[in-house]
Amino acid sequence: MDAQKPYVIGVDLGGTNTVFGIVDARGQIVAEDSIKTQAYPTAEEFVEAGVQCLKPLIAQVGGIGNIAGMGIGAPNGNYYSGSIEYAPNLSWAHTTVVPLAKMFSEQLEGLPVRLTNDANAAAMGEMAYGAARGMKNFIVITLGTGVGSGIVVNGQLLYGHDGFAGELGHVIMVRGAEGRPCGCGRTGCLEAYCSATGVARTAREILANTTRPSLLREKPADQLESLDVSIAAGKGDEVANEIFQFTGKMLGEACADFAAFSSPEAFIFFGGLCKAGDLIMKPIEESYNKAVMNVFKGKAKFLVSGLMNANAAVLGASALGWGE
Amino acid sequence: MDAQKPYVIGVDLGGTNTVFGIVDARGQIVAEDSIKTQAYPTAEEFVEAGVQCLKPLIAQVGGIGNIAGMGIGAPNGNYYSGSIEYAPNLSWAHTTVVPLAKMFSEQLEGLPVRLTNDANAAAMGEMAYGAARGMKNFIVITLGTGVGSGIVVNGQLLYGHDGFAGELGHVIMVRGAEGRPCGCGRTGCLEAYCSATGVARTAREILANTTRPSLLREKPADQLESLDVSIAAGKGDEVANEIFQFTGKMLGEACADFAAFSSPEAFIFFGGLCKAGDLIMKPIEESYNKAVMNVFKGKAKFLVSGLMNANAAVLGASALGWGE
Repeated sequence: MDAQKPYVIGVDLGGTNTVFGIVDARGQIVAEDSIKTQAYPTAEEFVEAGVQCLKPLIAQVGGIGNIAGMGIGAPNGNYYSGSIEYAPNLSWAHTTVVPLAKMFSEQLEGLPVRLTNDANAAAMGEMAYGAARGMKNFIVITLGTGVGSGIVVNGQLLYGHDGFAGELGHVIMVRGAEGRPCGCGRTGCLEAYCSATGVARTAREILANTTRPSLLREKPADQLESLDVSIAAGKGDEVANEIFQFTGKMLGEACADFAAFSSPEAFIFFGGLCKAGDLIMKPIEESYNKAVMNVFKGKAKFLVSGLMNANAAVLGASALGWGE
Repeated sequence: MDAQKPYVIGVDLGGTNTVFGIVDARGQIVAEDSIKTQAYPTAEEFVEAGVQCLKPLIAQVGGIGNIAGMGIGAPNGNYYSGSIEYAPNLSWAHTTVVPLAKMFSEQLEGLPVRLTNDANAAAMGEMAYGAARGMKNFIVITLGTGVGSGIVVNGQLLYGHDGFAGELGHVIMVRGAEGRPCGCGRTGCLEAYCSATGVARTAREILANTTRPSLLREKPADQLESLDVSIAAGKGDEVANEIFQFTGKMLGEACADFAAFSSPEAFIFFGGLCKAGDLIMKPIEESYNKAVMNVFKGKAKFLVSGLMNANAAVLGASALGWGE
């Protein structure tokens, strides 16, 4: 870390907003602003708007000479190429490869800019500022619209030979014809069961297959969201708790396979579903310890992100800005 | 690498024999001898016999001053602790933890000694001398009595937080009551289907469930071995080829999940089953490319070990002797 350059820039590039934050070495966001990600017809115009948004923030901390680097977390971000590649939900990147890191660097006096996908950025954030401080082997699992993952081994993010490692939402949990269709075009993926949409689908299936009373019946089935399940489970609703048992069982069994792979010290969960706390975390951990090989039993910690209330995505991306 | 010390010792500690080899920097075994692993009642006596076996080999290359280090590949070997831990098939280590690296080092004038499990040693060997030269992300899968694995990411072996990472023979391929029992005490593991015993079991199941003619019927079913399947498949036996299709499909689907984890450049297969060549490798690769996420399709190489005819285990273990 360059003592002469006490700040980094962290960028959380999401489908709706792109948040720019200036972060100090203790993980404090000292300045922040945002733009609408898709208000620009081209990537060039998006970068131009981003730089205009950043300039006053950079001035606030004494100019670009005080910035060590910039890290961007973005959907379909590839660390090796510094590009966003065919991101289905970004109007200016869904059919192309956008070399975003290079584009920002050129507009910011050659500042080192690194880019990775959102789940990897979350793992960087946990390691630098969150629940994984001091850990060298852990897996962050993000439970959101999809199921993503950032895998750290030997203190390094696992990128694989092409930059696309860590797609744990797409290991197959149900093989063959019974598997649920997944957004990736295949069937039976973990994501099809444990994403927000997966949990809502589980809710609809259980409600349709029984006549048991449930708070979840107060809403039309096609409008049910995973948040409704969390709220109902918190009120002691039995059907909602069964949905969490089912979801937790699958996540725990998946983690048992992940342990056979990289034997992490901890699994760290991030995203809306974790707000249900023990209602979801206990079933995950119980299922894991039941399913896992003897040699791993009882060893791994199951943690909720240490950054759920901070601007985790900005912090995570900013950790990339310090370099390796 | 210390130019003053041009040799390393590689040790392949198996259930029957323990082979000691002196290896030069080009991967040539310049001297070799062996002892019976289980002819000694205690670990102390085994180490004493090993040192006596090594002494003339060391003298041949000019003395211990010419040896940079020693690497041992052993069942249930833990890299972090340098110990063999509860190895079910070793009489002097099956109920205890044997600090073998330390014991050998003490008897060899403080020589640096490192120890790892057999599949990890195979991966080291492939990287240093075999099919993985120049690769930084690959997975070695050993198809023997069990199914083992050595995973390399960023050019480093993946040991995990406790040294037990890389147990890919024990990811669950068939969940629930239908899964075959596995030696690990659980059901449905990859090893239960794709180890030598797994392949023989598949053969017995297919033969029992049909009346189709097959060369495999020439032997009593309970004496069938995976080698018989290889020989029959080589002669064009349809049932034998169906067994390889089944085995290859499962290995390919498992590799598709492994790609989602670490996105390796290559999967390298090692062990008796690979001697069947394309008869088993083609079904694996076809199944993989059918099962894997789009982003990985067609990218990974499927290779047979580059060390099948050399003393691969000794070479692999010796690679540890050079240090990191």
